[in-house]
Amino acid sequence: MHDYPQKVYLNGEILNHEDAKISVFDRGFLFGDGVYEVMLQINGSFFYGDEHLARLSKSLLAIHLEFDLASLPDKIETLLKASDLHEKDSLVYIQITRGVAPRKHAFPEKAMPTLMMYAKPFEIPDINQKQASVRIMDDFRWHRCDIKSVSLLANVMANTEITKEGDYEVIFSREGAITEGSHSNIFFVKNNVVYTHPANEHILDGITRQIAIELCKDIGVEVREEAISKKEIANMDEAFLTGTTTQIASVKQIDDHLYYTNDDVGQITKRLQEALSQLK
Amino acid sequence: MHDYPQKVYLNGEILNHEDAKISVFDRGFLFGDGVYEVMLQINGSFFYGDEHLARLSKSLLAIHLEFDLASLPDKIETLLKASDLHEKDSLVYIQITRGVAPRKHAFPEKAMPTLMMYAKPFEIPDINQKQASVRIMDDFRWHRCDIKSVSLLANVMANTEITKEGDYEVIFSREGAITEGSHSNIFFVKNNVVYTHPANEHILDGITRQIAIELCKDIGVEVREEAISKKEIANMDEAFLTGTTTQIASVKQIDDHLYYTNDDVGQITKRLQEALSQLK
Repeated sequence: MHDYPQKVYLNGEILNHEDAKISVFDRGFLFGDGVYEVMLQINGSFFYGDEHLARLSKSLLAIHLEFDLASLPDKIETLLKASDLHEKDSLVYIQITRGVAPRKHAFPEKAMPTLMMYAKPFEIPDINQKQASVRIMDDFRWHRCDIKSVSLLANVMANTEITKEGDYEVIFSREGAITEGSHSNIFFVKNNVVYTHPANEHILDGITRQIAIELCKDIGVEVREEAISKKEIANMDEAFLTGTTTQIASVKQIDDHLYYTNDDVGQITKRLQEALSQLK
Repeated sequence: MHDYPQKVYLNGEILNHEDAKISVFDRGFLFGDGVYEVMLQINGSFFYGDEHLARLSKSLLAIHLEFDLASLPDKIETLLKASDLHEKDSLVYIQITRGVAPRKHAFPEKAMPTLMMYAKPFEIPDINQKQASVRIMDDFRWHRCDIKSVSLLANVMANTEITKEGDYEVIFSREGAITEGSHSNIFFVKNNVVYTHPANEHILDGITRQIAIELCKDIGVEVREEAISKKEIANMDEAFLTGTTTQIASVKQIDDHLYYTNDDVGQITKRLQEALSQLK
């Protein structure tokens, strides 16, 4: 999973990964001035593909980057064929940056955006059986986490620290309220009510987060988009993570608090995992 | 000033700017996972060069990026000669990223860092005569502004918004306290006492900031490293910005508050500008 992809799409060209190069003056490299998206092709079609493209469009708008997404599906198709992944289960990574210009903070008036994409084979299990162990960290990221930006140094620093300790994910706490993970959203369950942080500027409104909220409604479980405080964690009945590659993962442990001492999965988490597997 | 440099140093090679290319899998491009430094050569030597290199070392340490800086001065010399800027007044940009690896949040175990540098002719006036007009914005950046990271999307977004309006700089307010500018530090003067935000994780401890503090001591002016609140701005006698390319710039106006209706410069600001020009 952590190898290079066979092919890279770069500004209209299909290249081998070792030949896919951009200028050092690309603002993605100089300023982290770009956005990205990750989506999965499952059974020959993109899982909530329209929603992913709509979010990409929203991220572009938020950073005032004009880019016509209309031809993107065709370009992805070209990439998939070139990568020998046509209609195969795969993960597609899409990055758009503000393009190449002499270094100056303010956005350049004339620059051609850079589009870079790659696809890799990706097998997603029906249900994520991982019992996630997570750790809490103060949320030191910026205050526009709703933008899926490539200025990700905070996320990679946090992620590195926790994976070094063998944990699966870090969840952030901003002024005592749990926001989200470094690359997933988090939900809690208490007395059959599901809680998750509201979709404001402090979290990324994950596509799988949106799906999980819909699935709760489908199975008749109340959802409240309210933040859970760090102090309330030990009082919760269940917790789970959502994300494009994470799907729905049961949380076994948060810091020192164990939700389960064995491989149990909470009842609502399990029902949602099963409901998600039915969608594919 | 905003053209491409003649030459680029990239991982040991001197290249024309259009040939200076990195892999799209460079973590600088994928994650903003790197740090940078900007310094000036004036009259044949680097202005506080050791301090700039010490800060680069500190930034690298903060993001756990191992890189041997010992040979950097020689490499810069090679670059300057190739750029026809040997001993000439110039600006040197230095960027170090975590290098090339398949995309995965956590730091790769084995990756060779990328070193990219360029130099450009740069003429610095003895004294910055600019009367800066600045605007206040809520500080939506991350909480490790002490690291000179290339994950700069927040800074470029803020900078774009204010320069569009013709202002020189944005200054950030975090929970009501003025922190710093998007690429400069800010000082205030009240009753002959100079105030600036303490050098904690909310600001970059600018080299020119450090020099200005020393110069205050030299000219017998008291300095307090205390944040000024947004509400106190109109009660201040003077304000000025500091930075490597900004030097010391008098602030004429912050939002609707005018410090001067003409081209005046406050007495302490002027004395510090003169003292700075003596150092070069």
